[in-house]
Amino acid sequence: MAKSKSFHHGDLKRALMRAALEILDEDDVAGVTIRAVAKRAGVSHAAPANHFPDRRALLTTLAAEQFEWIFDAIQAGSSRDDLMPIDRIAVLFDVFLQFGLEHPYRYQLLWRYDLIDHDADILREPADRVYDFLTGEIGKIICRKTVDPDTVAVAIWSMMHGYLDLRMTGMFEDRQDIISGKPRAQAILSIISDYLEGLRAAP
Amino acid sequence: MAKSKSFHHGDLKRALMRAALEILDEDDVAGVTIRAVAKRAGVSHAAPANHFPDRRALLTTLAAEQFEWIFDAIQAGSSRDDLMPIDRIAVLFDVFLQFGLEHPYRYQLLWRYDLIDHDADILREPADRVYDFLTGEIGKIICRKTVDPDTVAVAIWSMMHGYLDLRMTGMFEDRQDIISGKPRAQAILSIISDYLEGLRAAP
Repeated sequence: MAKSKSFHHGDLKRALMRAALEILDEDDVAGVTIRAVAKRAGVSHAAPANHFPDRRALLTTLAAEQFEWIFDAIQAGSSRDDLMPIDRIAVLFDVFLQFGLEHPYRYQLLWRYDLIDHDADILREPADRVYDFLTGEIGKIICRKTVDPDTVAVAIWSMMHGYLDLRMTGMFEDRQDIISGKPRAQAILSIISDYLEGLRAAP
Repeated sequence: MAKSKSFHHGDLKRALMRAALEILDEDDVAGVTIRAVAKRAGVSHAAPANHFPDRRALLTTLAAEQFEWIFDAIQAGSSRDDLMPIDRIAVLFDVFLQFGLEHPYRYQLLWRYDLIDHDADILREPADRVYDFLTGEIGKIICRKTVDPDTVAVAIWSMMHGYLDLRMTGMFEDRQDIISGKPRAQAILSIISDYLEGLRAAP
């Protein structure tokens, strides 16, 4: 009996995804192939075919799971009733930052549109949930409208992504802001807060 | 007589850099090797050795030239006496954006610290000139200090880089801001302006 037969329905997929994530964390996306994942999960290299027709499908599912994790973490961190929209945006910012700094290869995979299918429902849905969370909170804040909430969301997302990417390349180091004494990432978040507060203020 | 002998001092280096830039634009950095550059310049593969001991030195010089070009473009665009600091920051933002969108492979090379030597004087000096321009203009604006000018510079640089990088991956498309009617990049720049104006205002 082939080893893969010993898996219950669903178990094999979970085992494959766990193996894929382990390899991603060790070797970056280059190491994550159907064959390597099957080997790590201890099944034949034909076994994954039912779940993942090709590497692109595997990587897309892997990226989708990361977005789901990110969204769940944002939800969990922002569920308290007394949080203001700006606090909820701070949670999103913080979740991305920690996720990216702790798991750079997972973070980088999210933007590898050359390797993943960003139109696939499985990926688009959790990614849209994160983006909609951000635009939703921005929409609650903006009173004095000089730009639309999408532009503000794109600006915040760009800042978050750019800071993370330049931390990963080594261009930016982890410094403290001299005036506030905060770690730089938190000081950047306070810039976003100040800007959004300014939008709320009467013209 | 070897073909490389026909170059005057300096001419060979210029010819090699021109060849390297052509290959970069066509093939991304992967194609830019000492051998490929020598071949494109029509010299023996040993000829570049006087100027570039290895590929890292070649790529570092190539990146340094891009930063020099960027700084010159910023200088040229911001030399008018009647420009305010925020206008000069807008010039920097615009130069980077156009440079990145028109020459994505050149832009990406700037952050390939795995392939270039970001501590080399030849690269650090023009990169620092650009960064110092940004912090200098921010320093002229900031009156109400809640964060230091470096944090504001890192935030603006992050936003610029993140937007460009996510445009390149395909995550962001070139849209118009609905309220202002501006292209999104210009609307993002207006967010930076609004924030900086807020810092100038009395508390």
